[in-house]
Amino acid sequence: MANPLLSDREIEFVLYELCDAEALCALPSFAEHSRETFDLFLAAARRLAREVLYPAYKPMDAEPPTFEHGRVKVHPLMKTIYPQLVALGLTAATRPYQVGGQQLPLAVSTLGTAYLMAANLSAYGYVGLTAGAAHLLEAFGDETLKRDYMTRLYAGEWTGTMALTEPRAGSSLSDVRTRATPTSGGHYLLKGSKIFISGADQDLTENVVHLTLARIDGAPAGIKGVSLFCVPSRRLVDGRLQPNDVQVAGVIHKIGWRGLPSLALELGTDDDCHGWLVGEPHKGISYMFQMMNEARIMVGMNGVATASVAYHEAVAYAQVRTQGRSLRSRDPAQPQVPLVEHADVRRMLLRCKAIVEGGLALLATTARYSDLATSAASPEERHRAALLLDLLTPVAKSFPAEKGFEANALALQIHGGYGYSSEFLPEAWLRDQKLNSIHEGTTGIHSMDLLGRKVTVEGGAALRLFGEEIAQAVERARAAGVAAEWGAALHASFGVVAQLTATLGKKAAAGDVEGMMLHSADYLELFSILAVGWQWLRAATLAHGREEDFYRGKLQAAQYWFATEVPRVAQLAALCERGDDSYARMKPEWF
Amino acid sequence: MANPLLSDREIEFVLYELCDAEALCALPSFAEHSRETFDLFLAAARRLAREVLYPAYKPMDAEPPTFEHGRVKVHPLMKTIYPQLVALGLTAATRPYQVGGQQLPLAVSTLGTAYLMAANLSAYGYVGLTAGAAHLLEAFGDETLKRDYMTRLYAGEWTGTMALTEPRAGSSLSDVRTRATPTSGGHYLLKGSKIFISGADQDLTENVVHLTLARIDGAPAGIKGVSLFCVPSRRLVDGRLQPNDVQVAGVIHKIGWRGLPSLALELGTDDDCHGWLVGEPHKGISYMFQMMNEARIMVGMNGVATASVAYHEAVAYAQVRTQGRSLRSRDPAQPQVPLVEHADVRRMLLRCKAIVEGGLALLATTARYSDLATSAASPEERHRAALLLDLLTPVAKSFPAEKGFEANALALQIHGGYGYSSEFLPEAWLRDQKLNSIHEGTTGIHSMDLLGRKVTVEGGAALRLFGEEIAQAVERARAAGVAAEWGAALHASFGVVAQLTATLGKKAAAGDVEGMMLHSADYLELFSILAVGWQWLRAATLAHGREEDFYRGKLQAAQYWFATEVPRVAQLAALCERGDDSYARMKPEWF
Repeated sequence: MANPLLSDREIEFVLYELCDAEALCALPSFAEHSRETFDLFLAAARRLAREVLYPAYKPMDAEPPTFEHGRVKVHPLMKTIYPQLVALGLTAATRPYQVGGQQLPLAVSTLGTAYLMAANLSAYGYVGLTAGAAHLLEAFGDETLKRDYMTRLYAGEWTGTMALTEPRAGSSLSDVRTRATPTSGGHYLLKGSKIFISGADQDLTENVVHLTLARIDGAPAGIKGVSLFCVPSRRLVDGRLQPNDVQVAGVIHKIGWRGLPSLALELGTDDDCHGWLVGEPHKGISYMFQMMNEARIMVGMNGVATASVAYHEAVAYAQVRTQGRSLRSRDPAQPQVPLVEHADVRRMLLRCKAIVEGGLALLATTARYSDLATSAASPEERHRAALLLDLLTPVAKSFPAEKGFEANALALQIHGGYGYSSEFLPEAWLRDQKLNSIHEGTTGIHSMDLLGRKVTVEGGAALRLFGEEIAQAVERARAAGVAAEWGAALHASFGVVAQLTATLGKKAAAGDVEGMMLHSADYLELFSILAVGWQWLRAATLAHGREEDFYRGKLQAAQYWFATEVPRVAQLAALCERGDDSYARMKPEWF
Repeated sequence: MANPLLSDREIEFVLYELCDAEALCALPSFAEHSRETFDLFLAAARRLAREVLYPAYKPMDAEPPTFEHGRVKVHPLMKTIYPQLVALGLTAATRPYQVGGQQLPLAVSTLGTAYLMAANLSAYGYVGLTAGAAHLLEAFGDETLKRDYMTRLYAGEWTGTMALTEPRAGSSLSDVRTRATPTSGGHYLLKGSKIFISGADQDLTENVVHLTLARIDGAPAGIKGVSLFCVPSRRLVDGRLQPNDVQVAGVIHKIGWRGLPSLALELGTDDDCHGWLVGEPHKGISYMFQMMNEARIMVGMNGVATASVAYHEAVAYAQVRTQGRSLRSRDPAQPQVPLVEHADVRRMLLRCKAIVEGGLALLATTARYSDLATSAASPEERHRAALLLDLLTPVAKSFPAEKGFEANALALQIHGGYGYSSEFLPEAWLRDQKLNSIHEGTTGIHSMDLLGRKVTVEGGAALRLFGEEIAQAVERARAAGVAAEWGAALHASFGVVAQLTATLGKKAAAGDVEGMMLHSADYLELFSILAVGWQWLRAATLAHGREEDFYRGKLQAAQYWFATEVPRVAQLAALCERGDDSYARMKPEWF
């Protein structure tokens, strides 16, 4: 049987049982939708994923885009794939009808795109980036930019990129140096170097539009002097395209996502690179930040999807590959047993399942808060959802990257020596996964975002709301008859986190910011275990008492998470509370 | 500055301060040696590693051996490297003078080879495998085999392989099916398929000798019917080589170790593959097992070396690459700071250091027990060392593979987006490292070896001896004035492990073998943390009170290990003791 990428039953469970997506249809934004329209979207996405994107994955990994005479040529298969992705409406799935979108809840669209990501991350990347670029123009661009660029991006006529990173400015966007000089023509002239720009050139469409961070001449130093520009590779002059002095300076040989080129760009080599300011001057970073939750949910889903496809491959392999015998019956005259009969292999598979499905539930839940943050009925509900969305985003982005990488490594391990060869796919997914802890904010940066900003904002309001959600989940689990110790453990773990957060906050209040942030990585990890534990308690509540295989598996994975991971919340919190200054005091010359 | 691969000061510390290698020279086996001869060997190895092997690493990774017309061609650089490895005496470094060896302690030779492994795993692989094959013939072969094959292998005139694995028999060697039919000529005719045979063909030497597991016609089923054969690719007939019906059936495209081909072999396609029985019939597995400690120390050192070279690369990168500013001073007018100024980067580096240096110390200590097991003065001392060697081997093999992989991933992460490109080396080392959890026994198998055999053998004698070693280390730390809580923590952790082992042993005694083995993976992990903690306490004892940078760094890494990892011994032991049957009860159809 072919790899399902994700389980359809799982998607149904997450969307309708766990997230009650149908309830979203009661909101005006989603009033035209119903379970039927959601299912149509999902069915189309999974069919495209399985029939078109997945068969192209290995060829595209084996033959990355080429770069000759200053132009990129993508894999020929992309030329048949790209129009089908556009036809599915993926450039504007969640956007309003008036801009050509389908106005789908993000909770729905993200689960559809999960199939496409699991099938072929790179192929989906072209439209994912285009959607993000267009959304920036929709939100902050003027009418001309919307007419000239946004509409063509949403239509998939051109593709888009996010041109943020520079050779000396990756994590530190305040150090962007690309210059923008105003002209009397209303445009700016840009000059500078960008690097790691995914999809910045291709031969799929006749233009690529770069949403570019640059510094207007005389702008303040730092983050408050960075503006956002629309910089096309070819600009419209009297309705025709002509070159815009955007040169591809080189291709970076990425170890994964090999179907999507990552490029170095030179802007304004001939002092003729036109860019148009998006929104107001010096607000580029804040505009980017307003889009970041969605981008980070997308990266989180990349992580879940990449772990999911490997998990399904490993489950299938473990059920057919025989090796060795059980601990009880080692009679060599008997045939060997399938790998899945070995307890340690089942342990690895169940760990993968707990990570993949726990991560998927967390992503869908976070996406649902995003839907409520924009579309809930009252300002109070929208504000509440926005706080939870902001709080959970660093977790939803980082957990799948970090633990997904572990799941991908386990999927390779289960394949044994074959897993170590490029004839089998797990190694490719392991390579793909590694990017997710780096791009769209490294795990370290998200750990500082969570602890230094998200849990403290508005006097800890988001954390309190999270506590309410957990309390509700615990109460529902109790009412459903779920193992009482799980609810108790989740309740207690939240208490530990709240207490720890208060303790760390006091350090910062006393002026010891470094002390507060010392264990931000451990804090992110324990918070992630808690958040995923919350999802497993919710899943267990729905599964309790059900006899179907699907629910039995859910209860086993929930048990695994509560037995193995949840106790680590208190253990890690003790470490954070104690504080280990070994690396704080480490001097560079001591390494 | 070029990557040092390993720190020379570190090697000096481990060998002379931690392991007191000079004391070994008091034993008759090593009486001809002195610190001078050790240092000469180390100096030659590190020079060859740095000047010859390391510059060839990236070219050999980029252009793996080719396979045409049934023959393998290795990278041209190997033709200059191989003779230099042989000239260094690496095929027989630890072997007796009478077979052409240098009779070096394994503790010394393994640290010399660590440089070569860190520089270029694949290049070293050719001689490492040859040494292993020759050692089998030395130990178990008759005089003819020694004269015809062993001497040429030790001389590097030919290379050797270990031909164990078959398409249906990897972890389960009892399922080897290759047949050996006796003939009146004294040789056997072999027929069967082998797979994943590293270095099974090359164009460096005119012959390759495969130490091959096969089943003599009529042999009992299972492990007790497997014999060991010497099967050359070309056989000696009247002093001349002629083909021996060993065909290369295919090349496996490994994701790492790309300079060393991994091949599928067909033996006896034309019913003319001659093999010579090594030792007695049906004892092949037991012969292999007698060589396995050394092979596993070699794999463990592969893991340490691969993590070490990446660690040094990351340290150097973090000291020159600037990005962002400190938490206290975010003034964008100030220049960016080196990555190493960020606490979370230092955390990642210190974690790598703790893994690499802790692993190196464990490997050297284990190798020293190997030296004492063969060469100590009294039978009692030899037996004592043999028990400790057997106990520590699964840990020394698996810890560097598992935690080394984490260190390699962190080294990539520290390089950010650049780390994700094949223009930088960390991704290559990450690929290399992944094999070490698979070959020479998977981590799962080593976990069962440790818990099901090593800690229980002779009524738990090895564990008691380990307790004595720990008690001695604790006492020395106390006398030296090392932080008292570290010694107390190590002492308590050993108590926890001893108690847990007794509890689990009782389960098996009561017939519940599955119950005993349920958490073997967790047991291996907690045991590894304890064993590496023991090394860090020993290192701290030597470093205490010293002002040099080298020792200050040691104390910080020891602090990190005791603060972050050692508490996990009790936490994991609690999990093992409680027992989580989530995966034991998981049914295949529930996934």
